[in-house]
Amino acid sequence: MNAIAKPYDVEAIRKDFAILSREVYGKPLVYLDNAASAQKPEAVIEAMTRLMREDYANVHRGLHYLANASTEAYEAARESARRFLNAAHIEEVLFTRSSTGALNTVASSLGQYLQIQEGDEIILSILEHHSNIVPWHYWRERHGAVIKWAPVDEDGNFLIEEFEKLITPRTKVVSLTHMSNAIGTIVPIAEVAKICQAYRIPLVVDGSQGAVHLPVDVQALGCDFYAFTGHKTYGPTGSGILWGKREWLEKLPPYEGGGEMIATVSEDAITYNDPPHRFEAGTPAIVEAVGLGAALDYMMALGRENIAAHEARLNAYAMERLGQMNSIRIFGKAKEKGAIIAFELAGAHAHDVATVIDRAGVAVRAGTHCAMPLLARYGVTSTCRASFGLYNTLDEVDILVEALRKAEELFS
Amino acid sequence: MNAIAKPYDVEAIRKDFAILSREVYGKPLVYLDNAASAQKPEAVIEAMTRLMREDYANVHRGLHYLANASTEAYEAARESARRFLNAAHIEEVLFTRSSTGALNTVASSLGQYLQIQEGDEIILSILEHHSNIVPWHYWRERHGAVIKWAPVDEDGNFLIEEFEKLITPRTKVVSLTHMSNAIGTIVPIAEVAKICQAYRIPLVVDGSQGAVHLPVDVQALGCDFYAFTGHKTYGPTGSGILWGKREWLEKLPPYEGGGEMIATVSEDAITYNDPPHRFEAGTPAIVEAVGLGAALDYMMALGRENIAAHEARLNAYAMERLGQMNSIRIFGKAKEKGAIIAFELAGAHAHDVATVIDRAGVAVRAGTHCAMPLLARYGVTSTCRASFGLYNTLDEVDILVEALRKAEELFS
Repeated sequence: MNAIAKPYDVEAIRKDFAILSREVYGKPLVYLDNAASAQKPEAVIEAMTRLMREDYANVHRGLHYLANASTEAYEAARESARRFLNAAHIEEVLFTRSSTGALNTVASSLGQYLQIQEGDEIILSILEHHSNIVPWHYWRERHGAVIKWAPVDEDGNFLIEEFEKLITPRTKVVSLTHMSNAIGTIVPIAEVAKICQAYRIPLVVDGSQGAVHLPVDVQALGCDFYAFTGHKTYGPTGSGILWGKREWLEKLPPYEGGGEMIATVSEDAITYNDPPHRFEAGTPAIVEAVGLGAALDYMMALGRENIAAHEARLNAYAMERLGQMNSIRIFGKAKEKGAIIAFELAGAHAHDVATVIDRAGVAVRAGTHCAMPLLARYGVTSTCRASFGLYNTLDEVDILVEALRKAEELFS
Repeated sequence: MNAIAKPYDVEAIRKDFAILSREVYGKPLVYLDNAASAQKPEAVIEAMTRLMREDYANVHRGLHYLANASTEAYEAARESARRFLNAAHIEEVLFTRSSTGALNTVASSLGQYLQIQEGDEIILSILEHHSNIVPWHYWRERHGAVIKWAPVDEDGNFLIEEFEKLITPRTKVVSLTHMSNAIGTIVPIAEVAKICQAYRIPLVVDGSQGAVHLPVDVQALGCDFYAFTGHKTYGPTGSGILWGKREWLEKLPPYEGGGEMIATVSEDAITYNDPPHRFEAGTPAIVEAVGLGAALDYMMALGRENIAAHEARLNAYAMERLGQMNSIRIFGKAKEKGAIIAFELAGAHAHDVATVIDRAGVAVRAGTHCAMPLLARYGVTSTCRASFGLYNTLDEVDILVEALRKAEELFS
């Protein structure tokens, strides 16, 4: 399929998502909560239901027809994820339950391998989602490691010189988001990776938003691990990917224990399987992995450069229109940013704003966006956030603005 | 719905499972691999697809219509799981990705709380699945704990007196399967629990098979934790339940770190949320949880005593028919056993038997069944296993036997 050559037909794309034609409170749904979770195209739903209705069994260990069919579908999804990331080797692609599952896996296994101990340093950025904070915090809470925070400026730009200054001989690992879920900042991962390589420090990337909004090539980025989640890349809940360089995965200890990740189990001793199986304990989320494969195929068919270009238009238009409203303060105006816009309406609590515009059919999120340190950086405890996806339209930006104007009147 | 009063109409039930009407190699599918994974009724598939097509958003943190609808569906599924287990409190019910996820959670969090260290003892049984071995083995491998193995007799009966003899002042935890996935033995959990209570030792139960085949009442059982998986209870992959007594969950540290499981995150400190959220890091498998709720509702509507009675008939008939074949050796003839039958055919490798009868449409599993210590107990490295579910029929037992007779001729 060479959809890249075709014009980006957002109205045709919207027809692939059944939920987008529904109404809420008698108004057409305007779904601008994509950074929390994206809707799923029929291709994903059909891949899942087809497997369950026709070809389902457990994978890998079976010798019968359905077990083979299910295993083939599962491993084909792994190949889709490999292509999606341009990973060099398929065994570098691990299925996880989510980004959170992926980041806990790498924080646990890599941390153990690196023998993180008291006084060792972990560099995160102030942009991080809690899922890329708490798993590293465990090394602080339980082993005395130190977390250092790479800063951003007032506009939310990642400050790479400031980041580099944080590196010391005690720096064990750097773990950064590719793109902020709260304000849209894109972190220059390729530049960060060059620095990390120079210091021989492993670089973990939380791609929970990056994989949704940016074309991702892990070889070009030069990081060591890349995590993303299925439910934000238009795929099923309960699915995610951890990509890790083969040289790393081969030497890391396992994460969870269970079936399939072992080679042998006796009463006295256990040996572990090779990657990727070593990191996929127990029955995986088979149907969800297959659904994720369909979602990634869908994005690749649309063309990720095309999706990014469409979202750049949405972002520019929404930034312009919201920027024209005197009562709106936008948090995050980084030079490199994606279509995620955090804002507050003067004189109104974010939760009240979200609740009011919901009645106009507009779904945005209000709260901390699981990024409390970043909100503290801006001196606020909650914001509203409008986050766009591949199916949103310029008209929906207008509806958002109109709904905010009515909220403005209500709260003024 | 009061289906319990109705006769158990297996032909009507089979119509709820689309895949059961398919053929493989031109033969009707005879699916006897339920201990590996069960098929899913339309009620489950429809609950999942309806949510994705009509009401999907991320849960808990949202204020908009879809977020509320999704949260209600997710929490309704938790209530279904509570009823399924007869748990006293809904916050005792944790969604996990699978049994493996659940057992790793309890092994990690409970082990930390108990401060398991060198020389401390963990009692498992020789019946355990690897998913209830490896998470505990980590305490041996990394902290010097000792694993002790409760034995079975030649028929596979759990020897409760022998079990009790293993307890010492160093015993920190007991973790046992409710029902062997490899040979069907039912462990007398209620009796074990009384012993554990007398010694004040927490009892973890792997209900991966128990929840499928037995009516489960965690209050009546008297255990402290009970884990099971969605994909074996006729629900989605990527879903599972860990039930834990409230007194335990309130004091245990979290397992994975991420969004939703925290109360506050600052640059310097993190505080954790209350159960169940403390143990549900990140976006949960929302659609899968809702599908699991539908599966458990389905089982409850059929009546679990009815399912158990139906499966008892299947087990008795299959044990009788297979027992009449001179070339068949059955492993596991415990007095209390469910409809899981492990066997070997004289002169043939288990894998070859499974492959041959697959051509007759009969799906069984061959291998170690993730229970290597148990197979070593019997001096074998693999068996065939026919495992039954609520939709299997006596006619299917006949087809299995017929297929095995042909295999017998082939290998003799």
